[in-house]
Amino acid sequence: MTFEFDEDTAVTRVDDATFAAQVTERWNTFAGPNGGYILSIAARALAVHLPMPDPLAVSAHFLRPATPGPATIHVESLKSGRRHASALTRLQQNGKDVLVALGTYADVSKASGRELLLNEPPALRDPDGGVDPGAGIDPAFMPPIAQRFVYRTDAPPGFALGKPSGRPAYDAWIRFADGREPDPLALTMFPDALFPTIFEIGELISTTVEMSVHVRAVPAPGWLTMRVSSRHITGGYHEEDVEIWDQRGTFVAQARQLALLGG
Amino acid sequence: MTFEFDEDTAVTRVDDATFAAQVTERWNTFAGPNGGYILSIAARALAVHLPMPDPLAVSAHFLRPATPGPATIHVESLKSGRRHASALTRLQQNGKDVLVALGTYADVSKASGRELLLNEPPALRDPDGGVDPGAGIDPAFMPPIAQRFVYRTDAPPGFALGKPSGRPAYDAWIRFADGREPDPLALTMFPDALFPTIFEIGELISTTVEMSVHVRAVPAPGWLTMRVSSRHITGGYHEEDVEIWDQRGTFVAQARQLALLGG
Repeated sequence: MTFEFDEDTAVTRVDDATFAAQVTERWNTFAGPNGGYILSIAARALAVHLPMPDPLAVSAHFLRPATPGPATIHVESLKSGRRHASALTRLQQNGKDVLVALGTYADVSKASGRELLLNEPPALRDPDGGVDPGAGIDPAFMPPIAQRFVYRTDAPPGFALGKPSGRPAYDAWIRFADGREPDPLALTMFPDALFPTIFEIGELISTTVEMSVHVRAVPAPGWLTMRVSSRHITGGYHEEDVEIWDQRGTFVAQARQLALLGG
Repeated sequence: MTFEFDEDTAVTRVDDATFAAQVTERWNTFAGPNGGYILSIAARALAVHLPMPDPLAVSAHFLRPATPGPATIHVESLKSGRRHASALTRLQQNGKDVLVALGTYADVSKASGRELLLNEPPALRDPDGGVDPGAGIDPAFMPPIAQRFVYRTDAPPGFALGKPSGRPAYDAWIRFADGREPDPLALTMFPDALFPTIFEIGELISTTVEMSVHVRAVPAPGWLTMRVSSRHITGGYHEEDVEIWDQRGTFVAQARQLALLGG
């Protein structure tokens, strides 16, 4: 079986430093293709190109809106060491940079060293006991990306009831709708996969300027738990902070984006 | 008067896409030149090169240790728009990449739009009533960078008393020792300028893999307040999260680095 995420992030090698991909409409938000989806195409090209498998740290700047259609991904290796391999990538459409990213890859399964956790995963009910936060929303108002994931929260979020809470934060379970299991590559997509925090302050669209993702462990199969929050909205900009745990409760990724309210 | 930070981050244009700089020993930690210092040299080259003055979002990957001595900074503009201008920069020593960074610059003083703050600056005593956290440490054991800043905390941190607290977090006041006032460029240095959180868990050295800085406002003259914490130490990696406010209490910057324990 081929899963949607793997189909839609597939990259074809064109030459030593170039890959081709097809941006699909399936991950569209209200404002076009989701930024995390575009990042995961670039991250996949780096995973193929580099001698290390996992996106330990990926930092992307979003320069232009992506559109469904063909894309070209340029990759340039910067350094390859015993533990880390780094590269630059540019995802272009119609000859223009859509996303430019730096990636430092590693074999995350081999990370060994000190462990000290001072943060707990969200205290959510088991996903089977949760609610679908989109259950009350007319499917005609749901963007395609909402069909790619299954979400569970303890209670419907304010925006889904037509009453934004004023508190731009959520805890939720998430998985791919078609049963694809999470892996380090998919952890570059998940940080941007939950409904935006700004829905809770009555905003509908924001434009990502920069997003950095740190993958800290290989996720176990099953659901992921996400904690998402925005705490500083200043001059129209806001951060969105994301922490992700796997179903065993292992901390697997952390991400932050800076975004500008509006399209 | 010329201030240390301005002297030591000075860049000289070599050609349209190249600057020269001199990495000094004055910002050395126990492991050589401080990462935030190296980043601020690259950020300064971008500020000169781009039509926008302030590092709204800078994402750096640290590929090799810097050493005191000459450095070459290559810059490549990626996009220049009405609100943002983005570029790639590579800081090289001896022909090899030390740091590669993406920068999206803006005129932060002109950011206008929604404001909503859900986070407070640290509740610290006035800096005049605080203590110098390094007061009890033999100056012979202090790296040069400690002389570049003045720090104030409410009480001496555990490591300074020889008793790391086990809690890798600090709140502190900070300013340049020579009186240079903070500005958006210096906010690329400050996130890495406080004593590392890992001192509180008995570690002395960590190596930055990636650091992203978001500058959210132009700081007022005077002290800055910083809140620094590490909450996830896994497989030998840890994040260091930084929030910075100016003396008026305005939120001015946010940063995160991923680092690996050890040299």
